[in-house]
Amino acid sequence: MGQYVIEMNQLLLRKDRVIIMDVRIERDSLGEKEVPADRYYGIQTVRAKENFPITGYSTNQSLIRAFGYIKKAAAIANCELGLLDPKKAKAIIAACDEIIAGKWDDEFIVDPIQGGAGTSLNMNVNEVIANRAIELLGGLKGDYRIVSPNTHVNMSQSTNDTFPTALNMACLDVSKDLITELEALVTSLKKKEIEFDDVVKMGRTHLQDAVPIRLGQEFSAYYSVIRRDLGRVRNALENLYSISIGATSIGTGLNALPEYTEKVVRYLSEYTGMPFASAENLVDATQNTDSYTELSSVLKITAINLSKIASDLRLMNSGPKTGFNEINLPARQAGSSIMPGKVNPVICEVMNQISFQVSGNDHTIALASEHGQLEINVMKPVIAFNLLQSITILTNGIKVFRKYAIDGITANIEQCRRLVENSIGIITAVSPYIGYEKASQIAKKALKTNQSIREICLEEGVLSEEQLDKILDVKKMTNPGIIGNKTEVLV
Amino acid sequence: MGQYVIEMNQLLLRKDRVIIMDVRIERDSLGEKEVPADRYYGIQTVRAKENFPITGYSTNQSLIRAFGYIKKAAAIANCELGLLDPKKAKAIIAACDEIIAGKWDDEFIVDPIQGGAGTSLNMNVNEVIANRAIELLGGLKGDYRIVSPNTHVNMSQSTNDTFPTALNMACLDVSKDLITELEALVTSLKKKEIEFDDVVKMGRTHLQDAVPIRLGQEFSAYYSVIRRDLGRVRNALENLYSISIGATSIGTGLNALPEYTEKVVRYLSEYTGMPFASAENLVDATQNTDSYTELSSVLKITAINLSKIASDLRLMNSGPKTGFNEINLPARQAGSSIMPGKVNPVICEVMNQISFQVSGNDHTIALASEHGQLEINVMKPVIAFNLLQSITILTNGIKVFRKYAIDGITANIEQCRRLVENSIGIITAVSPYIGYEKASQIAKKALKTNQSIREICLEEGVLSEEQLDKILDVKKMTNPGIIGNKTEVLV
Amino acid sequence: MGQYVIEMNQLLLRKDRVIIMDVRIERDSLGEKEVPADRYYGIQTVRAKENFPITGYSTNQSLIRAFGYIKKAAAIANCELGLLDPKKAKAIIAACDEIIAGKWDDEFIVDPIQGGAGTSLNMNVNEVIANRAIELLGGLKGDYRIVSPNTHVNMSQSTNDTFPTALNMACLDVSKDLITELEALVTSLKKKEIEFDDVVKMGRTHLQDAVPIRLGQEFSAYYSVIRRDLGRVRNALENLYSISIGATSIGTGLNALPEYTEKVVRYLSEYTGMPFASAENLVDATQNTDSYTELSSVLKITAINLSKIASDLRLMNSGPKTGFNEINLPARQAGSSIMPGKVNPVICEVMNQISFQVSGNDHTIALASEHGQLEINVMKPVIAFNLLQSITILTNGIKVFRKYAIDGITANIEQCRRLVENSIGIITAVSPYIGYEKASQIAKKALKTNQSIREICLEEGVLSEEQLDKILDVKKMTNPGIIGNKTEVLV
Amino acid sequence: MGQYVIEMNQLLLRKDRVIIMDVRIERDSLGEKEVPADRYYGIQTVRAKENFPITGYSTNQSLIRAFGYIKKAAAIANCELGLLDPKKAKAIIAACDEIIAGKWDDEFIVDPIQGGAGTSLNMNVNEVIANRAIELLGGLKGDYRIVSPNTHVNMSQSTNDTFPTALNMACLDVSKDLITELEALVTSLKKKEIEFDDVVKMGRTHLQDAVPIRLGQEFSAYYSVIRRDLGRVRNALENLYSISIGATSIGTGLNALPEYTEKVVRYLSEYTGMPFASAENLVDATQNTDSYTELSSVLKITAINLSKIASDLRLMNSGPKTGFNEINLPARQAGSSIMPGKVNPVICEVMNQISFQVSGNDHTIALASEHGQLEINVMKPVIAFNLLQSITILTNGIKVFRKYAIDGITANIEQCRRLVENSIGIITAVSPYIGYEKASQIAKKALKTNQSIREICLEEGVLSEEQLDKILDVKKMTNPGIIGNKTEVLV
Repeated sequence: MGQYVIEMNQLLLRKDRVIIMDVRIERDSLGEKEVPADRYYGIQTVRAKENFPITGYSTNQSLIRAFGYIKKAAAIANCELGLLDPKKAKAIIAACDEIIAGKWDDEFIVDPIQGGAGTSLNMNVNEVIANRAIELLGGLKGDYRIVSPNTHVNMSQSTNDTFPTALNMACLDVSKDLITELEALVTSLKKKEIEFDDVVKMGRTHLQDAVPIRLGQEFSAYYSVIRRDLGRVRNALENLYSISIGATSIGTGLNALPEYTEKVVRYLSEYTGMPFASAENLVDATQNTDSYTELSSVLKITAINLSKIASDLRLMNSGPKTGFNEINLPARQAGSSIMPGKVNPVICEVMNQISFQVSGNDHTIALASEHGQLEINVMKPVIAFNLLQSITILTNGIKVFRKYAIDGITANIEQCRRLVENSIGIITAVSPYIGYEKASQIAKKALKTNQSIREICLEEGVLSEEQLDKILDVKKMTNPGIIGNKTEVLV
Repeated sequence: MGQYVIEMNQLLLRKDRVIIMDVRIERDSLGEKEVPADRYYGIQTVRAKENFPITGYSTNQSLIRAFGYIKKAAAIANCELGLLDPKKAKAIIAACDEIIAGKWDDEFIVDPIQGGAGTSLNMNVNEVIANRAIELLGGLKGDYRIVSPNTHVNMSQSTNDTFPTALNMACLDVSKDLITELEALVTSLKKKEIEFDDVVKMGRTHLQDAVPIRLGQEFSAYYSVIRRDLGRVRNALENLYSISIGATSIGTGLNALPEYTEKVVRYLSEYTGMPFASAENLVDATQNTDSYTELSSVLKITAINLSKIASDLRLMNSGPKTGFNEINLPARQAGSSIMPGKVNPVICEVMNQISFQVSGNDHTIALASEHGQLEINVMKPVIAFNLLQSITILTNGIKVFRKYAIDGITANIEQCRRLVENSIGIITAVSPYIGYEKASQIAKKALKTNQSIREICLEEGVLSEEQLDKILDVKKMTNPGIIGNKTEVLV
Repeated sequence: MGQYVIEMNQLLLRKDRVIIMDVRIERDSLGEKEVPADRYYGIQTVRAKENFPITGYSTNQSLIRAFGYIKKAAAIANCELGLLDPKKAKAIIAACDEIIAGKWDDEFIVDPIQGGAGTSLNMNVNEVIANRAIELLGGLKGDYRIVSPNTHVNMSQSTNDTFPTALNMACLDVSKDLITELEALVTSLKKKEIEFDDVVKMGRTHLQDAVPIRLGQEFSAYYSVIRRDLGRVRNALENLYSISIGATSIGTGLNALPEYTEKVVRYLSEYTGMPFASAENLVDATQNTDSYTELSSVLKITAINLSKIASDLRLMNSGPKTGFNEINLPARQAGSSIMPGKVNPVICEVMNQISFQVSGNDHTIALASEHGQLEINVMKPVIAFNLLQSITILTNGIKVFRKYAIDGITANIEQCRRLVENSIGIITAVSPYIGYEKASQIAKKALKTNQSIREICLEEGVLSEEQLDKILDVKKMTNPGIIGNKTEVLV
Repeated sequence: MGQYVIEMNQLLLRKDRVIIMDVRIERDSLGEKEVPADRYYGIQTVRAKENFPITGYSTNQSLIRAFGYIKKAAAIANCELGLLDPKKAKAIIAACDEIIAGKWDDEFIVDPIQGGAGTSLNMNVNEVIANRAIELLGGLKGDYRIVSPNTHVNMSQSTNDTFPTALNMACLDVSKDLITELEALVTSLKKKEIEFDDVVKMGRTHLQDAVPIRLGQEFSAYYSVIRRDLGRVRNALENLYSISIGATSIGTGLNALPEYTEKVVRYLSEYTGMPFASAENLVDATQNTDSYTELSSVLKITAINLSKIASDLRLMNSGPKTGFNEINLPARQAGSSIMPGKVNPVICEVMNQISFQVSGNDHTIALASEHGQLEINVMKPVIAFNLLQSITILTNGIKVFRKYAIDGITANIEQCRRLVENSIGIITAVSPYIGYEKASQIAKKALKTNQSIREICLEEGVLSEEQLDKILDVKKMTNPGIIGNKTEVLV
């Protein structure tokens, strides 16, 4: 890792020689560590990197950006309150703006699954900001007398209030796309409801032939449940506007002035356009993670509903020759590496799998949430990792599900009609006229002899041809009521 | 099972003799079955009993009662619409009233975990009502020409609309006590918050000494989170007022007149005093179970929060000699069969276990919910079983948790103070005056030499005695701000 | 609760009168409690009943019986070692024998979900034995000077070694039926494999037509996986022969002589015919619950596999007119309260639901297992409750699944053949002769024009009629290899 | 994406001009797509990339390498059987060797969560190999007449046999490190058991003072359970040697010669040194995923046990001033951004979080496994993703847990002894001499008066000083038996 610009703290002065290092030496309360000379993170980040080589994944960018906003707001507030030297503040703010702009993404190297309730991520941010601010002030990276990650950048803060505040901000940020995609899906499902309003098909319960339904009605059910899910997600996100910044380490607010808290909340609202407010009870907000479990639960419910729809579509699309074959999902890719011409419902299948992943993530989050102890829940990093992942993959999944599956569905109208007319379930409409018991006998006979319901009814003389014409109207069967107005028919 | 009154259908007339049976023979579309002569259930119940010998548990009584209300409302509506003979209707209504009063609880013998989406429970109800109505009309049990379980009792209905409607009603019914208990717990926690407002104790994060907190603040956090849970439960219950009666088999409402639906919804509201309304989309309401997964999720979140509190109390109560020993949970029973004098936090422990059970139940419900297929979700019975159990055990658990744990907690004020004063965490209040890095050195030295923070600060000459008097005020440390007004202190 | 026989301890002697009570007063270290005079349980049971009104369910009978065996073995061992007076021992043993015989089942009234790691159940057992032994010795119930529940019945024991030992024994006991049912199911599946060996049907992947398979092969897959599950269950049960009796409270064995432990293990093996052995490390065996999580995991895996099979059968049975209709499940009950003639796959559906319940129970068990702390896991009662329930319902479910579903399945041979011949997937057999790309075009054309694969192949002139006769042999397609020997065919 | 070497298929010849493209056009049965000209993947990969923009993560490298081995083995086998032209085979083999060496990792761009049962990954591999082979044969990328991804590279194969075979291989590969780390952890725990064999400390049950134990015994319990877990993991991995290659699409082996299968299995064993064998029943092996759920369950059980140990260590390490303070975990990083001098048990905390993640992953895998349908389980990609992640993070976690936590633990011997001597639980050793009831009174008095057990015993005159000297030996209390030989002491 050769360096062109040599900073002074890379020079080791020995009796007889000067050694130029591509690392700098930093010190903290536990001792010394080498830090790559050109990096902005510092000793605590290096320790964390060593301690947590777990997933190898990067930290979510929205989470980093949220930290940038928080550190900026804190610096301004601390400066305005006379606690932070304006020159330092200015440098810190400039560094934060760069982080928000994504300029230093590569400097955030700690693993998303980490011990310490997020201290390592917070310190990674503090160190990058401090070193960049030091640089902007003309100092050498690592010279924390100029700007200290703890004393200055983290002033009036703790991991225990910045991490959850940043997580709330990040969830809200990444959820914007989720809301957009859920809205688009709701619209698409409504369109399909209207498009297929006339397509009468067989309804099935227990995978057994039941009574007729319109394909539009199937989609109306999908529309309704996803619209409810959209509402659920929106509601669960509302909780996240309540933030705990100013709580410091355990919610008592030690070392944070009340004016500071008020200012930071206001600035964060301004930066993001989101209506943040200080949590009513900061001790509560510091130790409890129920707003995350609630959001995760809602994502899980949404995922379950999407999975059910995906499975339904796969059933209705089954075939083409030996299945239901009532609808056609768009062909998106060759389905098999060995069976020529096969096309599989891959988009629905990925929707199912995303659902399982979101459910598993919810499980992890619930486990972590239950392990809060006294003043904080140290398991927040794994909550953050899973929650942000769930939002992201659900968003991505809904998008392809809509674009590549729902929107392109076509109906096999002929096949749908053929199946209904061939079915025995339509006996249900006859039942009010002849009683359940007699109707059962006719149904049984129809199945055995392979005759139609109409034929048997006539054969058995239970109803006349005119009566059956009125009653056996499969389209009417898809609406409430006894088909054919009982009094009229029986006259 | 000897009988005193012999009904005619117990007599088998043979050429040469009359056989008196203690069973009656019933027939359905699949053939014949013996039914105990004195029982009100019929052949379909007998089949279900044989098919589902699974858990051995009984059906929840609220669920049975709810079915009673539904069958009654349906009979009245059908009668008013001229579909059901008034004499039959009157007998059915009388039978329903008896079921609602709990008179026939022993007749509901089908297992709560059953195939068929609840058809067996619905038919069990239909048969009991039919046979009791037959009896009231002077007929013989099993003579379904008088009153038929399907044609008359189940008129205009399907399992697929009655079962979820009944489940909604049952959940709302059993949840009344849950709401009451949650409210009482919230009140108790608030009382403890006030009672312990003055007790300064050590705050801990990561189970490591942090900074001081008041015991009242701990309880304020518990109060806040459970109050939110109360709100969550209330919201989730709201969804259940939307019922699907009138949807019949797949939500299209085939065989149910719109006027019927309107009437039944109205009557159910009257009977229960609950604001029921017909679901906006009955196809949706028939196939989707998201209102149950939502309620279950909310129960799980509540359970998680209760478990965290229970674990905290066990920690603070740990000891009496070798643990934290900050609080005393009421002694409820001898703790050990072998260790004399031991008293364990058994109520907290049962709260933890209830939480795990509710979480497991939620898992089952989520699995079942995801397995909806097309027009219905046949897995509703296992959803009902788990959901009603979760509500019940959570209610029971919260009650004992409040009465036998929370309400009787006392504080070991001396021990709490001793621990705070002995701690190193109070260095945090000094940190704004001397910087994080210097403060770290002092903390380290204090730990090593076993001296107090005050002593080291004086020894190192970083602050004067007067300054330390102002800063090291542990009570003040439990409120927001930099202790001792930085400007004043440093003058 | 009027009494005919008045025991002396029911008499309250007052200055001026004698009061006859239907309760007796008992005392323990926490004070006094009334106990119903005719009951054998005592004060600690009464306290537990008050503390844990949670599920309302009874304790599993195998678990009670196992405690009976343990207490008996301990009494004999203690007596032989000179620690327990022979007269007392004899009475205790007699009482234990009655418990083992099920005579006092109603006396075990504590809730299965209880705090205290099972102390309440252990003490319930100790008290019933003590009081019954007292009675046998001519004393009055409650006069624990004669036989003390703790000092005598519980001698050399702790809840922490008796409860897990009893749970191991109970699991092994209730699992006997599970093994029997799994074996029977494996046999039934093998029979069906053989019975359906000749039935060629369409194989489906992604619910899309794939290539032909024989119905017997489907069942061979079910047979194979359930046979593996049988092996898994057997293996997981092996762990339970290692018991911790003699560990006393924390595994150090304080107050239990090594000879005692050796004797008790030997006697338990004799009573049950099971090869019990003392756990290698009693501290480990006292605090860890991994043998339960392992058994539960194995039950869950079995349940998952059963659920997959049940779902497959429901798919193949779908119809009768608008589904796959390849097999017929036995008709077990009328399927619908509204749709005449409908028959649903209710046995498969209950198998699915049992699977979900077992999965949920496993989740609860895993949560509980993770919450062990230091020397014990206090959450064992909820583990016991769920584990024994899982074994029981799985056993019951497998039994009906075999008897009422698997054994009676018939194949719709004609329909199976028709679907295969109509399918496009058989192009796969042609593919090795003409390449994947050309085969894809033919498949596509066949689907579009609704012609058969054979027709298109001839039309396109890619293969001759003779060649196609050799290649398009659907039965051969169900075996490994390239159909028709490539070299021969292409000659 | 400018290109220096222009391949012919980048040239679009138009009437009046030649367009040089940096893409090539490929065609499949669904139409045309642009593929970046310099990439080795092809049209099906491009489609998959578009269809599945889900997680953004890369495919596990062991999985890719395993595919490389399979494709190589298949090419050799097909060539030897005369099905594949030797020249093509040679090129394919060369391409495979490069993939195995990691040369083309960047070419595998499909998302790990993908629909289609893994077809997209299989085709990604097929395409990269084909194009690289084409290149080696002097052709232009995309000219699949030279080497076809399906006809040649995928010859005798299906996704449905290659994907699970590759997954088995990958699991075994990544598990090598897991086994190594588990073994190292077992060794470390044993060392600590020995190191701390003499450290007497208080045992705690229910977080309440119980009876003495040695710190070495605590570690012996950890050692024992993790050693069992090691055995479990090893056993579960055994199943994976049974592979399904040769099963082709549904296990019937259509289009794969039996000799081919035998050869491929043999070659894979040779390449990897692992004892692979062909699955007994290929239909079973194609559709069932129980070997993955079993492995995942075992990982979960291991994770649960590790989490329990981590939590125990955090408890024993709690303090330093206001907790148990019995052991010291190595200081790995500054614990707080605000509280100077604080050091947190971050390594234990990350172990807990990894445990939760592995549990959540297991949940996802179980859900996916249950969703197998008929001939295959299309959810295998999400199984693969979670299973490989679980193995990896568990391995990483165990490594740091051992190196940075377990190995460096030291005992606070003085504090341990002080707590024991101060405790009341030692009354248990006295109990056999004076009975449980009397012992309870003494314990209660000791707690109330803050006197020692010894003092009260003397005061109450229940035992003499000499007797107490023999009985109150805390070290002896950590071994089985009644302390002080009852007969001797009472003489």
